Amino acid sequence: MSKLRAYPPEDLPEATIESIIAHTKDYQANHGSLIKVIGSETEHSVQLHPVGVSLFPTLFPQKLFDEAVELQRIYNELYCKVAEDVHWLHGVTSPLRDTEPLVDALWTVYEEVQKRRGNGSAQFPRQDVSGGVFRSDYMLHWQEDAGEEEDTDNNNMKNKEEEIEENDLHWMSNVTLKQVEFNSYSCAGGAHANKVAEMHKFLVSRHVYHDFPLGEDDMNLQSTRENPIRRDALPKNKTIDKIAYMLAAALTEYRSASSSPSHRQPIGILMVVQPHNFNTTDERPIEYALWNWEDGGSPIPTYRVEWQDVLRYTTLTERGQLLFHPEEGQGKSIEIGVVYHRAGYEPKEYASNHGIETRIRLELSRAIKFPSVLGHITTTKKVQQALTGPGVLERWLPPESARKIRQTFVKMYPLDDGTPAGIKGVELATNDDTAVDYILKPSLEGGGHNIYGDGIPDFLISIPRSQWSAYILMERIRSPPGIYNVLMSSEGITACDVVSELGIFGTCLWRSIPKVDGRQSTCEMIKNKVGGWSFKTKDAFIDEMSVVKGFGCFDTPCLVDQ
Amino acid sequence: MSKLRAYPPEDLPEATIESIIAHTKDYQANHGSLIKVIGSETEHSVQLHPVGVSLFPTLFPQKLFDEAVELQRIYNELYCKVAEDVHWLHGVTSPLRDTEPLVDALWTVYEEVQKRRGNGSAQFPRQDVSGGVFRSDYMLHWQEDAGEEEDTDNNNMKNKEEEIEENDLHWMSNVTLKQVEFNSYSCAGGAHANKVAEMHKFLVSRHVYHDFPLGEDDMNLQSTRENPIRRDALPKNKTIDKIAYMLAAALTEYRSASSSPSHRQPIGILMVVQPHNFNTTDERPIEYALWNWEDGGSPIPTYRVEWQDVLRYTTLTERGQLLFHPEEGQGKSIEIGVVYHRAGYEPKEYASNHGIETRIRLELSRAIKFPSVLGHITTTKKVQQALTGPGVLERWLPPESARKIRQTFVKMYPLDDGTPAGIKGVELATNDDTAVDYILKPSLEGGGHNIYGDGIPDFLISIPRSQWSAYILMERIRSPPGIYNVLMSSEGITACDVVSELGIFGTCLWRSIPKVDGRQSTCEMIKNKVGGWSFKTKDAFIDEMSVVKGFGCFDTPCLVDQ
Repeated sequence: MSKLRAYPPEDLPEATIESIIAHTKDYQANHGSLIKVIGSETEHSVQLHPVGVSLFPTLFPQKLFDEAVELQRIYNELYCKVAEDVHWLHGVTSPLRDTEPLVDALWTVYEEVQKRRGNGSAQFPRQDVSGGVFRSDYMLHWQEDAGEEEDTDNNNMKNKEEEIEENDLHWMSNVTLKQVEFNSYSCAGGAHANKVAEMHKFLVSRHVYHDFPLGEDDMNLQSTRENPIRRDALPKNKTIDKIAYMLAAALTEYRSASSSPSHRQPIGILMVVQPHNFNTTDERPIEYALWNWEDGGSPIPTYRVEWQDVLRYTTLTERGQLLFHPEEGQGKSIEIGVVYHRAGYEPKEYASNHGIETRIRLELSRAIKFPSVLGHITTTKKVQQALTGPGVLERWLPPESARKIRQTFVKMYPLDDGTPAGIKGVELATNDDTAVDYILKPSLEGGGHNIYGDGIPDFLISIPRSQWSAYILMERIRSPPGIYNVLMSSEGITACDVVSELGIFGTCLWRSIPKVDGRQSTCEMIKNKVGGWSFKTKDAFIDEMSVVKGFGCFDTPCLVDQ
Repeated sequence: MSKLRAYPPEDLPEATIESIIAHTKDYQANHGSLIKVIGSETEHSVQLHPVGVSLFPTLFPQKLFDEAVELQRIYNELYCKVAEDVHWLHGVTSPLRDTEPLVDALWTVYEEVQKRRGNGSAQFPRQDVSGGVFRSDYMLHWQEDAGEEEDTDNNNMKNKEEEIEENDLHWMSNVTLKQVEFNSYSCAGGAHANKVAEMHKFLVSRHVYHDFPLGEDDMNLQSTRENPIRRDALPKNKTIDKIAYMLAAALTEYRSASSSPSHRQPIGILMVVQPHNFNTTDERPIEYALWNWEDGGSPIPTYRVEWQDVLRYTTLTERGQLLFHPEEGQGKSIEIGVVYHRAGYEPKEYASNHGIETRIRLELSRAIKFPSVLGHITTTKKVQQALTGPGVLERWLPPESARKIRQTFVKMYPLDDGTPAGIKGVELATNDDTAVDYILKPSLEGGGHNIYGDGIPDFLISIPRSQWSAYILMERIRSPPGIYNVLMSSEGITACDVVSELGIFGTCLWRSIPKVDGRQSTCEMIKNKVGGWSFKTKDAFIDEMSVVKGFGCFDTPCLVDQ
């Protein structure tokens, strides 16, 4: 284990911190690392403020970063296969329909689409290809005991003073990667992560964290120094381009399967978005990347439509072509080859028939969906929990891949009475002594609704027992202590111990392959890529990783050897 | 004269305008086309809103745009030579010292620097090289009568209906380019202009102004159509890179003249800025371009220092080296080879001895100044007016160049009693009937202090006659009527007839060549470039072109043939 000096240094002079802050804010203002001030948008203007960021890149083990990246292609394939395994997916998630309106809405959409499509009918032919922009989120899990034992065995001669030195990288040898959640639908944060990674890389080159360069060699920061924050310690992040690449690849796939390949009518991509979004700075860059696409020489026409306007501005031909003709198009229309979902993940969006019909129209179309409604259903926590069951991964993965994936799992339990795991889950969750090591998560996608530790027993008592099965119980990931950073958001500046979450984006395109018996399909991966990453950091004493609330801050891992 | 349909169309559906607005605001938010909301900056955050922009590029004659670009290298050379012609410059501007504190401060700095430098002393050796980031601003001047006569002669058969068609380009054949002012110091707006030019170009490619593309050819907008707003009708604008290029070239010049060329100590650029600037989005991009500079393989170290901190964070060696060592540098220092002035243009900055000493230190140093204090003095309106005198340009320019430059002049008069021109100026300015065709401008740099037309006689009566000579009287440029656009700023959205101002940036580097008699020097142009452009548009019924107040909007010329 290499010895690094305390990083980031806690004793930096006020002037240095002030300088870093000024550089950070101005960089953000100049590069769209901003979100809209909620309620500030008028027809003619809008106010924005910098998105929360860490002032320094946070230390992260290189080996585990590489591991997370390496796992992503297996994770992509796993979730594609789960999405195509309707039988299994239905078995696991349909019991939630009573308690989870979103899950119910999605299965309703699926069933209605099957019905309207008919069996073997020429109307609304099925699109066999689906796409994914996934994100697998991890935290570092610290195994105190294991590490200390190992330490004692191997380092008998170790200097005692070094051993207790604060902020050393002692913890690094005792951490593993554990999955927090897997998101398969409408994954956000990719564009912000991309911008913040470029910012930290720039600020390193700009010598904002260093003294002045001492010589020309130093200008390039190529000399190895004790300070870990070298430019090459910060991984590149091209999430915007990588998401755009996969959407473009899907459009090419759609075009090549088109019945009249010689037509000159352009086919476009449709990004379905939420109205009044304060976070268009996370969406628009993907659209810009596609319009500026140089591969093939032509821009890729990409349009936005707000969720509530989909039915008004689209039509479906009998052949299943989705035509987009917004009001400003003055009667003209464009065929949509790819639908990229950045809306439709909240129960309220399906509360009316209008919402359900919106999703049905998109799903029924021949456009390649990112992702299909089945792909969407895989994002539920219930699926994540079910995958931890013994032997479950082996349904889709070869043993070696299953083993790698399983290593990232923490213990997860359902809260139903029907299974031994469910009984165990209820037992752990209702006991104050054991609940403290767990998090209770609703099957809803996204954060912000979790119940932590000793709050769980009381919470469960407060809701009807029939609703318990909508939750899963997940072992708390124990973060390594003593990782320090300074966080800055619209809420203020906090110098504190921090906890980071690494999200690896996965982008893919797969083709559904019906099995011979016609009941269970599987899939062929057409494209399977790592799509960049996001890295968010929060105060170790706050449970929630909410960027909107100013708790979670975008960050860049400063990769160091374990 | 080609016939184009009315542009931008006044009858666009509300939905199209709304779509353009949404695209424009989001593009600005994502690309730093923003300014800080005044008073919103705290230590940890800041609010920004989009800078005022035109929704459509505004029509401008291609020929006159090209003419303005072509003139810039002559203008650069002219102003470099004027800056080195101390005798002439002193004669023209020193009378202003009594009434214009800024002019007095600059001459005080000049004289004090001469004194401290001494004659032939080894201490504080003179830097012979100076740099310029200039901007020459023009408006279109409409000659109604001339045009109509010509029209009648040449187009007897012309269809009467066509002749009165609104928004045709009739005016185009009757316009010439007239200079509003020449700025040689601290020219702003280049970065914003660059970003807005890229925005309009993108929005054209994005088909925001068009119907949907109808075929793949159409996607590239290469087909000629009646609509003038094709991508190739919008000129490129690389002002940020071009300013950075000249600063970098100056640094190379400084390095090559350095006494110990083999040392490995990096030498940097220092940008002197105003504190609490809401417009750092116009400054920072130049700094980013220099740090990201790839030419030569190394970033170019560029630092910012606020005006009031210059004396605190710099020192001057006896050899005239300017060393920069800000508080966050923790005792380390970097040698400054180039000083780029983005502060020091307001009288209040020199109100105390501290301000005067600040400028003296910078001027006394061996760093190459953008520009020298003499270069700064050339920016006064008094110089602009003096250059219009008969035969004056020929002092520095060959006859053909002088003729081209003189074509862009409008009538200008001093307001003193000592010359025939001054007597004429007073006569015109104090008479209501004639004053209406003029603007009264203080010799101060920058806009915002002008008195327009019929307000002039009353204004002059309100101030002591002794102060009149601080002003120059300038013929109003008569803008062509009927140019329409929609302007959007934080103040609102206005659809109106508009007036545009084209600024051509000039960047240069020159060496002072002392004449044999030792009294009057001239100069050798080391580099002489066009540095991009800015294009600002305002409501035709508002006199002031203030971007800060929300009147002036950044724009892109849509170039059309006359």
